[in-house]
Amino acid sequence: METHFIRWLRDHLPASPCLRLGPGDDAAIVRLSGEPDVVVTTDLLTEGVDFHLEQDDPRRIGRKALGVNLSDLAAMAARPLAAVVAVALPRDGGGGLSALDLAVAIYEGLLPLAAEFDLAIAGGDTNTYEGPLVISATLFGQVTEYGPLTRSGGRPGDRLLVTGTLGGSISRHSFDFTPRVREALQLAERYELHAGMDISDGLALDLSRLAEASGCGAVVCLDRVPVSAAARQLAGDDAAAALQHALGDGEDFELLLAMPPDAAEAMLRDQPLDCPLTCIGELVAGSGLWQQSSGGELLPLEATGWLH
Amino acid sequence: METHFIRWLRDHLPASPCLRLGPGDDAAIVRLSGEPDVVVTTDLLTEGVDFHLEQDDPRRIGRKALGVNLSDLAAMAARPLAAVVAVALPRDGGGGLSALDLAVAIYEGLLPLAAEFDLAIAGGDTNTYEGPLVISATLFGQVTEYGPLTRSGGRPGDRLLVTGTLGGSISRHSFDFTPRVREALQLAERYELHAGMDISDGLALDLSRLAEASGCGAVVCLDRVPVSAAARQLAGDDAAAALQHALGDGEDFELLLAMPPDAAEAMLRDQPLDCPLTCIGELVAGSGLWQQSSGGELLPLEATGWLH
Repeated sequence: METHFIRWLRDHLPASPCLRLGPGDDAAIVRLSGEPDVVVTTDLLTEGVDFHLEQDDPRRIGRKALGVNLSDLAAMAARPLAAVVAVALPRDGGGGLSALDLAVAIYEGLLPLAAEFDLAIAGGDTNTYEGPLVISATLFGQVTEYGPLTRSGGRPGDRLLVTGTLGGSISRHSFDFTPRVREALQLAERYELHAGMDISDGLALDLSRLAEASGCGAVVCLDRVPVSAAARQLAGDDAAAALQHALGDGEDFELLLAMPPDAAEAMLRDQPLDCPLTCIGELVAGSGLWQQSSGGELLPLEATGWLH
Repeated sequence: METHFIRWLRDHLPASPCLRLGPGDDAAIVRLSGEPDVVVTTDLLTEGVDFHLEQDDPRRIGRKALGVNLSDLAAMAARPLAAVVAVALPRDGGGGLSALDLAVAIYEGLLPLAAEFDLAIAGGDTNTYEGPLVISATLFGQVTEYGPLTRSGGRPGDRLLVTGTLGGSISRHSFDFTPRVREALQLAERYELHAGMDISDGLALDLSRLAEASGCGAVVCLDRVPVSAAARQLAGDDAAAALQHALGDGEDFELLLAMPPDAAEAMLRDQPLDCPLTCIGELVAGSGLWQQSSGGELLPLEATGWLH
């Protein structure tokens, strides 16, 4: 199986200027330029948890396997460089496809996304076994001259901003989202950012993590949270339920940023992206996650979200 | 599960000078020094193919998951830098352990090997699902000033050398081998090497790959192949059967090198390693894999080995 697949792969992998040596040797070689810091991230998708072969097109599954990792590079404001993809395939295939055709379909889904973000596919490992489909992608990227964007740099008084709208990813884009790589690079170049991450497990849970990593508390103005049309639709006419989707659904793959007030003001005025940028609250001294009522009172906010 | 495991991990991961940012953010950051070329390799181990949870200690499985990748870095003569480890765990655990204890045992096996080779554990992803244990490790290393060792640099007339002895890995060291990282770096520094790889699928199959990548044929003097004691034992008193083990068993994780005759002579005279270095044949013009009879005649040699 693997021999045939590697043959297919060699015919379909585009050349990449940073790829000094592609698949076929014991390892690949990638050349860095500029900053000597390499950002590395890995995400594992499993059948039954992250996708269902019987209902999800394997091309979309392959796309998602890269997309979630690209979103992590965006979260670090890193420039994508290369990926390796390891796939454990059910020996008899799945979704009506043989193991080989399944591997090909996964790559047919991920290759266009890789091309869109100048991400070299440096190699991988593709094995069959008696088990469900598991895809593990590891990406690495390069820190730019503006430095990496971590979760821990936030300070009390920082404004909290999010890209796009939140909630309802299940009926919207949990497979087909476009990772915010370009947006993160653009914002890091133009504005002073203190901390950032991507919203993968839900705004409330992820914000509680950013605040904790920064040694701060976080206050959210719930009426400012940009609720997606999909979340509203899922919730019927119930605004409170729609907000819960926006706070806890996860898989939004939007950016959450903490930045100084003047930089936030400039960014909100400029609105430099194709998607909205919204201020949803601020970091405060202390700890914990808080909601601000319309009367200004602070109440605890539960860190809802997707716990693995 | 993952939250508890990450807590365990943070308490047990040693600091590493090259690790600028460890697990806990959206991605890790590793700092390179010297050459800007990064070597990347990934290997996936699956239950039922590469190990059996019911009989193999998960510590040994974890060790092997890193070891096979370290062997690939050795094959490139690259200095180990960092690893990310993705694990898909059976929801109910396995081998008598809960999912969490299984994850911990895997790491208890891989951490000492990582420490031995100055390999930083930069992060990972650990999820539970309804399926067998799958471990995917991705390692990267740094090319040294002596350059990467690829499969394609061999030339007709090059001598073929192997480290150690071959065959019988199943009863010997398919889990507990020590990857030849130090040996590869030492040899690359002291001798002119044209091509190299690690023997993971069997000498005959792997040599046929090196020869093909170098655009050469390869001739093996079968009576010079260093047959391991384990292979002899597996074969009883049958020398021909023992040789077949040495040619085709795989998982030897020894180095196979192609180098100019004078460098090979010096290396064989010096015997600079703790393990034997043996000349087993040479690369020739043309193509294919050949055996040299005691009368000097060339006969085809089958590229036996482990095909995935």
